[in-house]
Amino acid sequence: MELLYEGKAKKLYRTNCPDEVLMEFKDDATAFNGKKKTQFQNKGAINKQLTCLLYRMLEERGIPSHFVRDVDEIRIIVRRVEIIPVEVVVRNWVAGSLAGRIGRPEGTPLSAPMVEFYYKKDELNDPLITTEHLRELNLATDGEVSVIRDMAMRINGFLGEFFEKVGIRLVDFKVEFGRLHSDRSRIILADEITPDTCRLWDIRTGRKLDKDRFRRDLGEVMESYSDVLGRVSHALSV
Amino acid sequence: MELLYEGKAKKLYRTNCPDEVLMEFKDDATAFNGKKKTQFQNKGAINKQLTCLLYRMLEERGIPSHFVRDVDEIRIIVRRVEIIPVEVVVRNWVAGSLAGRIGRPEGTPLSAPMVEFYYKKDELNDPLITTEHLRELNLATDGEVSVIRDMAMRINGFLGEFFEKVGIRLVDFKVEFGRLHSDRSRIILADEITPDTCRLWDIRTGRKLDKDRFRRDLGEVMESYSDVLGRVSHALSV
Repeated sequence: MELLYEGKAKKLYRTNCPDEVLMEFKDDATAFNGKKKTQFQNKGAINKQLTCLLYRMLEERGIPSHFVRDVDEIRIIVRRVEIIPVEVVVRNWVAGSLAGRIGRPEGTPLSAPMVEFYYKKDELNDPLITTEHLRELNLATDGEVSVIRDMAMRINGFLGEFFEKVGIRLVDFKVEFGRLHSDRSRIILADEITPDTCRLWDIRTGRKLDKDRFRRDLGEVMESYSDVLGRVSHALSV
Repeated sequence: MELLYEGKAKKLYRTNCPDEVLMEFKDDATAFNGKKKTQFQNKGAINKQLTCLLYRMLEERGIPSHFVRDVDEIRIIVRRVEIIPVEVVVRNWVAGSLAGRIGRPEGTPLSAPMVEFYYKKDELNDPLITTEHLRELNLATDGEVSVIRDMAMRINGFLGEFFEKVGIRLVDFKVEFGRLHSDRSRIILADEITPDTCRLWDIRTGRKLDKDRFRRDLGEVMESYSDVLGRVSHALSV
């Protein structure tokens, strides 16, 4: 199979269908722009399952994503898109880089959900950008930015409500969007939705159930990812 | 005289009039959030003169500022304001932090002037913020942000045109705004307009005539500030 792209956590392979690609979830874990690296057995499989479950849940609520069908333990078929090189972050509570930027301690609730854009560019360390930077860089049209912002906020609503039902606080998350290969005017949700890309805290205990366990050496990384998968799959199977 | 505030480059003193304060320009030069420090003889005097001249020029074009009147070599009377803790940067060419943020070399022209907001907070290293951060921090209302953005763009137009006439390219500049003490609903231009707060390049030679000479150890700092003052005062006296 021809490898089309290899990222930090996923690989994309060509398929026989020009509008579809095979996405493989790796066990690799990286943080701080690749400076911290390791592997976790089963991470790829857990993240694949979570992404499938959450994409299906969102699709049912009218959020179009690149997910087509399940293949095996670590691989799915997704629609081919041209990824817009912007990491779209939605935040409900202060955490991560926002704490240092606005000078509020981690865990402070925001008065309203907040959307941020980061320029997906390793050489530049994925910096925060404003819509004016986005425009200057021609990363997306104003219309696309508006669609993306709107979709990100709707995803936040659905995901936040869903995670709350399973006792998890959706602190923040990152999503990426792409232009459909077969129709560039259509923007759909792409990439993954996993504890690698969301900050998820147990509502009762406050325990972190996401990649911060790896970033901050808190241990029990895969146990926490499994915990999330267990709760999500149970909620969606009933 | 009672000192009301001391910043890195200026001091403010109380006057007999509750709506006016005395602003003194210091010879101190600082860069990189105070990590690099020195003094330049005459810097306060040059910057005071430039600020007076440019504020008067802008006032004639309908930009309200805090400038009231000249006092002596290094001091002016200004209207008392409550400073909005946001550094408003307008950029016409890529320089400084923007080069690293969007990955374009210094000196690249922007397709349109760009306004950026930085949170004026030394402890946080004056980070870039979006209008959503600004709103979360309650730094200004949406209406105020719109007034500020509009005024910053008009200032850019007037300043850019003026500097061009004296052979200087206005690469970018930083301004601050305040709410008038006697009427908080009125927003006016405050702070200073000097080579400390503008990037100014000689159009013919490309020579930097601003604080980057100090930041980057290029030498002849005061000679360049004097050059700017000479051209500005000559243009305004004819």
